[in-house]
Amino acid sequence: MTAAVPRAAGRPRDERVDAAVREAAVAELLEVGYARLSIEGVARRAGVGKGAIYRRWRSKAELVFDVAVHPAEIGPPPDQGSLRADLAGLVEIIAASLGRPASAAAAPALLAELAADPELAARVDARFIDPERRLIEALLERAVARGELPDASGAELAHALTLGACFARLHLLRRPSADPDELAAAVARALGGSER
Amino acid sequence: MTAAVPRAAGRPRDERVDAAVREAAVAELLEVGYARLSIEGVARRAGVGKGAIYRRWRSKAELVFDVAVHPAEIGPPPDQGSLRADLAGLVEIIAASLGRPASAAAAPALLAELAADPELAARVDARFIDPERRLIEALLERAVARGELPDASGAELAHALTLGACFARLHLLRRPSADPDELAAAVARALGGSER
Repeated sequence: MTAAVPRAAGRPRDERVDAAVREAAVAELLEVGYARLSIEGVARRAGVGKGAIYRRWRSKAELVFDVAVHPAEIGPPPDQGSLRADLAGLVEIIAASLGRPASAAAAPALLAELAADPELAARVDARFIDPERRLIEALLERAVARGELPDASGAELAHALTLGACFARLHLLRRPSADPDELAAAVARALGGSER
Repeated sequence: MTAAVPRAAGRPRDERVDAAVREAAVAELLEVGYARLSIEGVARRAGVGKGAIYRRWRSKAELVFDVAVHPAEIGPPPDQGSLRADLAGLVEIIAASLGRPASAAAAPALLAELAADPELAARVDARFIDPERRLIEALLERAVARGELPDASGAELAHALTLGACFARLHLLRRPSADPDELAAAVARALGGSER
């Protein structure tokens, strides 16, 4: 029988490991770039074993996607009272996420991995892309309930327009980030929403 | 004094070299990928000297961008009679260009190069991105002349929405290409254009 070990104050161990790995992965990404980042290097920097990382993330690509590109957990943003305002909240989240230096460093290499590995792409879709689309569907359902839209069928279009415009400005056109309100108003009009 | 050499029938030599290099670059890209593609390999496959390539393209990235991503020369598409129809023509060009296998193979690596090399990015902007935006401005000016738009100030927004939505569907969301008419109608509404 082992005596109960008093818990360290603060966050539980699991959460501390998680945070340490995330911080180490971002630091490695910025220091050595995606191609030279390794799970071993991240583990060493975080002071954990490789197993602790592989228990949480299935591959380097998934770890980097999680910590560098996508907010860890995105729930539906609070109801702002209109489709346009809800979309502006979404644009802010996407633009902030894509605009981080770690994301800019990782995005092109991740796209290359996704294009080359359909199974990885399927897992990323299930874990990140599909929930993001469902979140947009939830925003559109709210707009339907408010009488702003006739139906919520435009979720895929809204997804492509909001994510696409943010990504295009940063990586394809190299322009300053979109003004969230301006882009949100444009997407709301694109969806056929009444303007507020 | 040298005797005049009779010209081979068909395209002039410069044009034939150009076409041979373009074909060789696409073939190399599909066969070995962007990272392993070299100007030397392209020259060998095209049966020309490396100088013939460097006289036309300043770098591997510019050659690949030119042959794989961007249509060689895009002039303003013919006037289709409405903003929506003009935008549909533009979406078709962009989607066809991005959807080619050579483009899918090259795009992520090119984005990484552009992010890492501001001078290359400035040349790509001047050669490809700025003309594309001016082409969109020309489409919007036509719409202003028709009374469909109050002004042509939305060119950057239209650029980010059309290019972004096409790119996002292909590379970020892994969805089938947008229906050009549907996306064009959405962008026309986003710009505040009257629907036709």
